[in-house]
Amino acid sequence: MTEPLFDTIAIVGLGLIGSSIARAARAQGAVRSIVATARSPQTRKRVVELGIADKVVETNAEAVEGADLVIVCVPVGVCGAVAKEIGPHLKAGATISDVGSVKGSIVRDMGPHLPKTVHFVPAHPVAGTEHSGPDAGFAELFMNRWCILTPPEGTDAQAVDRLAAFWRLLGANVETMTPDHHDLVLAVTSHLPHLIAYTIVGTADELETVTRSEVLKFSAGGFRDFTRIASSDPVMWRDVFLNNKEAVLEMLGRFNEDVSALTKAIRRGDGEALYEHFTRTRAIRRGIIDAGQDTPAADFGRPHGHDD
Amino acid sequence: MTEPLFDTIAIVGLGLIGSSIARAARAQGAVRSIVATARSPQTRKRVVELGIADKVVETNAEAVEGADLVIVCVPVGVCGAVAKEIGPHLKAGATISDVGSVKGSIVRDMGPHLPKTVHFVPAHPVAGTEHSGPDAGFAELFMNRWCILTPPEGTDAQAVDRLAAFWRLLGANVETMTPDHHDLVLAVTSHLPHLIAYTIVGTADELETVTRSEVLKFSAGGFRDFTRIASSDPVMWRDVFLNNKEAVLEMLGRFNEDVSALTKAIRRGDGEALYEHFTRTRAIRRGIIDAGQDTPAADFGRPHGHDD
Repeated sequence: MTEPLFDTIAIVGLGLIGSSIARAARAQGAVRSIVATARSPQTRKRVVELGIADKVVETNAEAVEGADLVIVCVPVGVCGAVAKEIGPHLKAGATISDVGSVKGSIVRDMGPHLPKTVHFVPAHPVAGTEHSGPDAGFAELFMNRWCILTPPEGTDAQAVDRLAAFWRLLGANVETMTPDHHDLVLAVTSHLPHLIAYTIVGTADELETVTRSEVLKFSAGGFRDFTRIASSDPVMWRDVFLNNKEAVLEMLGRFNEDVSALTKAIRRGDGEALYEHFTRTRAIRRGIIDAGQDTPAADFGRPHGHDD
Repeated sequence: MTEPLFDTIAIVGLGLIGSSIARAARAQGAVRSIVATARSPQTRKRVVELGIADKVVETNAEAVEGADLVIVCVPVGVCGAVAKEIGPHLKAGATISDVGSVKGSIVRDMGPHLPKTVHFVPAHPVAGTEHSGPDAGFAELFMNRWCILTPPEGTDAQAVDRLAAFWRLLGANVETMTPDHHDLVLAVTSHLPHLIAYTIVGTADELETVTRSEVLKFSAGGFRDFTRIASSDPVMWRDVFLNNKEAVLEMLGRFNEDVSALTKAIRRGDGEALYEHFTRTRAIRRGIIDAGQDTPAADFGRPHGHDD
């Protein structure tokens, strides 16, 4: 065990990410004490039952009192309101962070409510599953995943380093970039894929000529891969699209151009263009596996056989 | 062990599907003897090494001589040519089938070359992985997956039943439908998802503002789910799109309408429309898991931790 990086961490919001941070921070001895809070009484009750925090309190204000590190783990649409609420209660010298999938809006919405005495270091651990809530979290979620920090200009370098060390201790690789660049990168590696998955799953459900039962039965032909991310938390994703509008619309424009090109190739029976495109995309998958960001096992390692 | 359903099976093409049929048929005692052939000498050599067939021969004509069941496991674009080649050599009373992902074109391309003395029962096992070749196959591939039979009108009912029994013995559920309906159903559950995945992976690779290294690193945000099916066999998929043009273009049209609707909701900041859509799609995933067509484990059961 290393010396804890922070004395007390306050986690606001104990869903998949918040509860995984609590579990991982304890498993790694990253902090001495974990204070947790959540808006809903059921979540707070469940966190007590799970025993993943040292203390569970009712209000955000109470949670952050005296905390050395505060991580806000709520949908990006409410981060501003939470910052406003906790601002006056933050300890001087504390580090304030978040886990939002959009960073420009976080800087815009949270920044103004935080006192000059604290270090504001927005963060985005690029990790997750399709499940939500305190039971969905686990200590290994961040292992070998990337955590992106987007500190505003002029942020104390030591505070940034300490938060980076925290995420590394939880198993993550850390990279730093501007909020705008983050939002562009994530628009293509995360937001557009989610939007497309949500779309196609909806499309399949609205056909008159193919029944829902047929869609479910024959989903192993490829469709089922899309349903996983299309079952992610609706509130979280609504907020992502509302708060990263520009970058998502830009990526959608690119995507639409490419759909048009492939559609044209199909309409014309241009086998060569299709073959060329389908060959090129194979290399990307190999790159992702080589980068340690997915499993090389067939079907993501899904079980095959009687009980899968 | 049950009594074998067929004395001799000839498998033409020993890729992922053909080699899985060979393995499963032997494991289940579905046939007495397996004759295999493949176009490339390397594949034939590898099949001999793997020992998954009783006999490996050089030509399609030789392979089907005397076989009671012939399954053509080659890309749909060459099924017609194979049918023409094997037609004169088929044993009277034999059952001829295939595994193509398109059925209308199979009936059109293979049918005319087959003698009236054989039973032609096109089939499509809706199962697979992103890997190709004889080494990629495994005996459990068809377990709990669906196999769709599309016998032309007037096909001998006993022959259809026997092929259905064969697929059930290999672990599959069997359903019968018309070739046209099959092509419509698969257009949405398989062909459109593949096209969309191939598209978005290509889109991500062509951006000037986001590097390939960034796309790979941060792919765990959702993108990596698309890369699996976008790394499927390019020849197989080129042929699918060339041979199911009409249904794929229809589904693409529907999909484009839905992309437009969601794009509009994002542009307008219509959170309610987004939330409503994202909530609806969750139910489909639950349906697929309830139907036994995917694993309920988070991330498809991908390993999490140090070595994933």
